[in-house]
Amino acid sequence: MKRVVIIGAGNVATHLGRALQNKNFVVSQIFSRTENSATQLASDLGVPFTTNLQSLDREADIYFYCVNDAVLCDVINKIDIPDALHVHTAGSLPLSIFESHLQYRRYGVFYPLQTFSKTRKVNFDEIPIFVEGNSLEAEEEIRQIAQTLSKRVFSSDSEQRKKIHLSAVFACNFVNHLFSIAEELVKTAGYSFDILLPLITETVNKLNELSPYDAQTGPAVRNDQNIIRQHLLLLENKPEFSEIYSVLSESIYRMHKKDIQTRE
Amino acid sequence: MKRVVIIGAGNVATHLGRALQNKNFVVSQIFSRTENSATQLASDLGVPFTTNLQSLDREADIYFYCVNDAVLCDVINKIDIPDALHVHTAGSLPLSIFESHLQYRRYGVFYPLQTFSKTRKVNFDEIPIFVEGNSLEAEEEIRQIAQTLSKRVFSSDSEQRKKIHLSAVFACNFVNHLFSIAEELVKTAGYSFDILLPLITETVNKLNELSPYDAQTGPAVRNDQNIIRQHLLLLENKPEFSEIYSVLSESIYRMHKKDIQTRE
Repeated sequence: MKRVVIIGAGNVATHLGRALQNKNFVVSQIFSRTENSATQLASDLGVPFTTNLQSLDREADIYFYCVNDAVLCDVINKIDIPDALHVHTAGSLPLSIFESHLQYRRYGVFYPLQTFSKTRKVNFDEIPIFVEGNSLEAEEEIRQIAQTLSKRVFSSDSEQRKKIHLSAVFACNFVNHLFSIAEELVKTAGYSFDILLPLITETVNKLNELSPYDAQTGPAVRNDQNIIRQHLLLLENKPEFSEIYSVLSESIYRMHKKDIQTRE
Repeated sequence: MKRVVIIGAGNVATHLGRALQNKNFVVSQIFSRTENSATQLASDLGVPFTTNLQSLDREADIYFYCVNDAVLCDVINKIDIPDALHVHTAGSLPLSIFESHLQYRRYGVFYPLQTFSKTRKVNFDEIPIFVEGNSLEAEEEIRQIAQTLSKRVFSSDSEQRKKIHLSAVFACNFVNHLFSIAEELVKTAGYSFDILLPLITETVNKLNELSPYDAQTGPAVRNDQNIIRQHLLLLENKPEFSEIYSVLSESIYRMHKKDIQTRE
């Protein structure tokens, strides 16, 4: 049974910790700089924690780095355990972030493509996991761990992973922000956000049958200037929303223009 | 049993026609300017069709207008059947569009908030329907029809409905366009769009527990300039995508700024 230390106690650490325990990995310790979140995750998993990198369990087989991109480099530089496997989970950061440790033989990346919230269970089984290692041996080791957790494991290098992460920002973070704007707008009409849920659900369910390109509907793809003008008028007092409206409408029109002209 | 004529043969006409037949309305005729789509829907519903407004069945109780916003006014002006109930289904167009017919006594709006594709079944039961009538009597009549089809029927005036329609453009059309962009990006990394589906599904499933405002994650809400710069670099050759990236990131940051400062 592999012994794992989890560095971080946020959303990824929480879900990864649970998933590893479910597959009989021994989580021997949680590290977090914040005592509050360290305590919480450690008690959730029933394992010890530390808030001091000097007290890190040095006997583990694998160290999973699940901290914010902004502090990852700093945390890596403060740890010096040469014989273990070191793995970070950041979509946007390259493998080479471990290179400062010249004596590290096995390191890599384990990037689960999902949005995690502490309060929501996720099925790890279906989550695509993108793995990379500094050697064939390291990559194979990471791949095997990933395959115990998920059916969808892919090799990808740091450049590919950066692009996957960017596409996830569009498909998740930006999409969620559009939902926030829709919520503000629907409230000004006197209704609550949940009147939009069947529409949102169907927008996503369509993707199982149609590519998003083929599923596109709305005034912009039809270039219905009359409706577009009316909508911009409604957004007169919300300049940031009307900018988003214009930029996205223009982009929809341009992406579909060629096809529409061909069809006519 | 009420006798209904459906004007239009597109996505809304198709789904509304089926739903009305299921609830024992008699669809007596389909009208469409395009013979092809008229034939298709008429044979699907097993009812007669016409492509000539002069041959419209004048004996129906209800006329449902399910045509494009851009041609609705023109179609309304070409029909002159004073004693029936006339109902349009456009979110963005006001009740007053019927006012040119001074002798019409009963007219109104029946706006189902959903994205319809001909090839996908929808459960009308859950679709919010927004109704409006030119009199209490007309509105009550439209409400009763809506309630036979859906559990979620709301009264709304033309101003409210315009705002609901605008919010739907953000939550559906714009969201779908972001999926199209994500698809293009993920393909440049060598993967197909379906690696994003678990992420997209979870982004939407979260909305059952969290408001989109509270669910927001990603580099923009953390104001992680390092990642944002990297992403913009990746989009260097796609100026329209990098404009969308900047405008949305800026808007996420501004919407959450106050709360983040309060928390710090």
